Amino acid sequence: MFEQYDLTKQVSDEDYKAIFPDLAAHLSRLQREARDLDLPVIITADGWNLSGISTMLHQFVLALDPRLYSYHAASTPTREEADRPFLWRFWLRTPTTGRMAIFDRSWYSRLTAERIHPGDGGAPERSLREITRFERHLTDAGAVIIKLFLHISRDEQAERIERIKQEPAAAVLIDGHETVRLEHYELYLPVFEGMIAATDTPNAPWTVVEAHDRNFTVIKGMSTVVHALERAIEERRSTVVPRYPAPLQPPSNKLLDLPDPSKHALSKKEYHEAINQYGEQITALQYSLYRERLPLIVVYEGWDAAGKGGAIMRLTRRLNPRICQVEPIGPPNEAESRHHYLWRFWRDLPKKGHIAVFDRSWYGRVLVERVEGLSSPSEVERAYNEINEFEEALTDWGALLVKFWLHIDRNEQLHRFIDREEDPEKQWKITPDDWRNRSRWDIYAASVAEMLERTDTKTAPWTVISTNDKRYARVKCLRTVAETVEQALK
Amino acid sequence: MFEQYDLTKQVSDEDYKAIFPDLAAHLSRLQREARDLDLPVIITADGWNLSGISTMLHQFVLALDPRLYSYHAASTPTREEADRPFLWRFWLRTPTTGRMAIFDRSWYSRLTAERIHPGDGGAPERSLREITRFERHLTDAGAVIIKLFLHISRDEQAERIERIKQEPAAAVLIDGHETVRLEHYELYLPVFEGMIAATDTPNAPWTVVEAHDRNFTVIKGMSTVVHALERAIEERRSTVVPRYPAPLQPPSNKLLDLPDPSKHALSKKEYHEAINQYGEQITALQYSLYRERLPLIVVYEGWDAAGKGGAIMRLTRRLNPRICQVEPIGPPNEAESRHHYLWRFWRDLPKKGHIAVFDRSWYGRVLVERVEGLSSPSEVERAYNEINEFEEALTDWGALLVKFWLHIDRNEQLHRFIDREEDPEKQWKITPDDWRNRSRWDIYAASVAEMLERTDTKTAPWTVISTNDKRYARVKCLRTVAETVEQALK
Repeated sequence: MFEQYDLTKQVSDEDYKAIFPDLAAHLSRLQREARDLDLPVIITADGWNLSGISTMLHQFVLALDPRLYSYHAASTPTREEADRPFLWRFWLRTPTTGRMAIFDRSWYSRLTAERIHPGDGGAPERSLREITRFERHLTDAGAVIIKLFLHISRDEQAERIERIKQEPAAAVLIDGHETVRLEHYELYLPVFEGMIAATDTPNAPWTVVEAHDRNFTVIKGMSTVVHALERAIEERRSTVVPRYPAPLQPPSNKLLDLPDPSKHALSKKEYHEAINQYGEQITALQYSLYRERLPLIVVYEGWDAAGKGGAIMRLTRRLNPRICQVEPIGPPNEAESRHHYLWRFWRDLPKKGHIAVFDRSWYGRVLVERVEGLSSPSEVERAYNEINEFEEALTDWGALLVKFWLHIDRNEQLHRFIDREEDPEKQWKITPDDWRNRSRWDIYAASVAEMLERTDTKTAPWTVISTNDKRYARVKCLRTVAETVEQALK
Repeated sequence: MFEQYDLTKQVSDEDYKAIFPDLAAHLSRLQREARDLDLPVIITADGWNLSGISTMLHQFVLALDPRLYSYHAASTPTREEADRPFLWRFWLRTPTTGRMAIFDRSWYSRLTAERIHPGDGGAPERSLREITRFERHLTDAGAVIIKLFLHISRDEQAERIERIKQEPAAAVLIDGHETVRLEHYELYLPVFEGMIAATDTPNAPWTVVEAHDRNFTVIKGMSTVVHALERAIEERRSTVVPRYPAPLQPPSNKLLDLPDPSKHALSKKEYHEAINQYGEQITALQYSLYRERLPLIVVYEGWDAAGKGGAIMRLTRRLNPRICQVEPIGPPNEAESRHHYLWRFWRDLPKKGHIAVFDRSWYGRVLVERVEGLSSPSEVERAYNEINEFEEALTDWGALLVKFWLHIDRNEQLHRFIDREEDPEKQWKITPDDWRNRSRWDIYAASVAEMLERTDTKTAPWTVISTNDKRYARVKCLRTVAETVEQALK
């Protein structure tokens, strides 16, 4: 593939001086337009060692308004990062709407490393799938991704290796510059070709930049960015996002055909025995998870007043606060709402060996946001798939994932609302929003049914629990967590 | 000091069951009140190894609403953290208004370690000063700090060391549990006593908790928190923060008695030669900084249209984007404005060996915020001191700090505003805000004079530059940075 590129291309200094200022001014204008249109922009530059990536990017950033971009230089993952899925650190650095993120080497380094060192336990096919999904999630939500690959020949690299030996001062910053060896060129060649072929998607295409001549590299790189931005800006201007709620199916799902909870009612004594038994089991199991470095993610979704708080408390009181975090999920704040909706859930992932309990979760996208018309029909449609892919990324990473839907019927909810309003210690738990949501019960019910239908996957199944009997429900939650962990540790 | 505490104190299980639920409910109510009052709350728990810190905190968090607190377990600093001043990671974890941060061991670990291992290059006296200032900055801005120290005897610790040997599962989480040795007790005793004595301030007092009996520990710890919150809430309710602008002195300062810039005007040729000379010098110097791991912080303040952007560009185009970050400082966003105003500057500090360029800075507190009445007179008054202490923390850490005030006169500003409005490529640079600020020139001028007066310190002096002649100013900025760095590297 690389042989099709003519590496002799050059731009004379004279031409460069004539072209560059206009191009830079153009880029600067487009950046402000992208801001005004709330367009998030991602630029990645990868390429051969010593191909001049940061030299090129340096010229880009001089044209840009520093208020509107962040620059992310490659580095080996920190301990915090190594304890998370490999895309975690890149998710965290995705730009908010109207901003630009520049990656000086990107997530592709991982893929390359896994191919070059197949013995190190990497899974390049999986990483490839993750990367494609990552880029698609972002571009589907409106981001522009521009990927540049700086290409040089074996001879050119050899020459640059020699040159750097003469000038060690500037080399301190070149990642692994001490270990760039010529014999690696042949090793990397098929890896880079395969990588570009496999990830040159319509939504995030690669541009190979012939990088022998510095002037040419800058002009071609910057022109690529300018054209991609122009296209994206034009497209954004002509797009109208519909803001009506997605249509709904009738409210039924076989998972909701719950057995009559009265048959399961537990006596106080039975309840306490069971809660203690599973609780003690979980206390012990958490340390095994910690030692085995398995992350555990427990998601609680359910009707208002279905007893999420009580169920969560029965779990967390058994867990050491040094390894368990509770993430209460409300409406996104201003910063969060300027990111992809999955961004804050990526951010809140537990470390390996730690436990994250989500009190509501990413499912808000297809529940409250859907019902309130905050997500468009196509966003809802995409969300099912994105959520399944997100959860697959988690389980592939090694996480144990438990998802609860706590179910009550409409009458039981009314009883509980009234109880709360009458008890001064519980009044704070009930708000006008709760009553408003209740008035839309049928629409919610249909959303719940469709959600269970489309996100009950083999790797991340739902556990639906009737909580009309609270004791039964709390025990069932604890037991499910305990059994899932025990199963995984076998 | 410790001998005054009666370690035999106990609470029977029966009493505990009678007291705890009410205490927990009370704490929970106070937490919601603190939220409603926008009160940030910090709880730290330190103490002897195996004194049961996380066991106690676990009971606290069960009473708390997880939406309103964050739990920070001690850990050795990550690479990112070790490359910053030691308080950086704690500053980043300070709670926003209305939230609570719980530190399971805190910044005091650093102090203890430095005292115990005096040979490791620590500076405990300096850390002590930093800690006192850190706590004062936070409480002056309205935060509540509650510090608990869990005390056990030598014999009790010995017994617990034995017990943990029998039960290794739970021990995996106890920091350094393999190395807790009895003979250390005598070593730590005077260190802990000294630490408590030196940092038991009225704004952030210590409470020693006798920690032999688990029930007693929880009840005393929680009662301490409850009483501190009650006091703080009452105080907050009775406090009225004045919101009128701070009074101003006449607009003069000897630093502003600038030489006539026309005498310094540079020809185009002189300008290009000088810019290139200092620029090349800086390009080379950045790698020395990197190797020596010295952080460089350059602050640009000045009148609107004084040429900050152009001066910054002349510097950054000489710097590798992998080590230089530009931080454009505008009004704080929603999340930032819920923190101490210095919080975002702490967050944006460069790593060791890296360079941060601030396009406007923390001085906004005593300039725009003061003029617009966004900071109260007492906040402005405090800010001078806090800023000086902040900058001293930076230089003590080893940072090189260069502060520029770019000065133009009122007529020159008018010329430049009009130029910008007439040039289509520059129109975006001028906004109605600029004109509005200009109409308040005299008030700004007085604020500038007082700022220069009160923050021109020995460790962090101002460089005031007349920019009526832009060429002269740009060269002067570059030269000042180059000379400062060169001086430091000697």
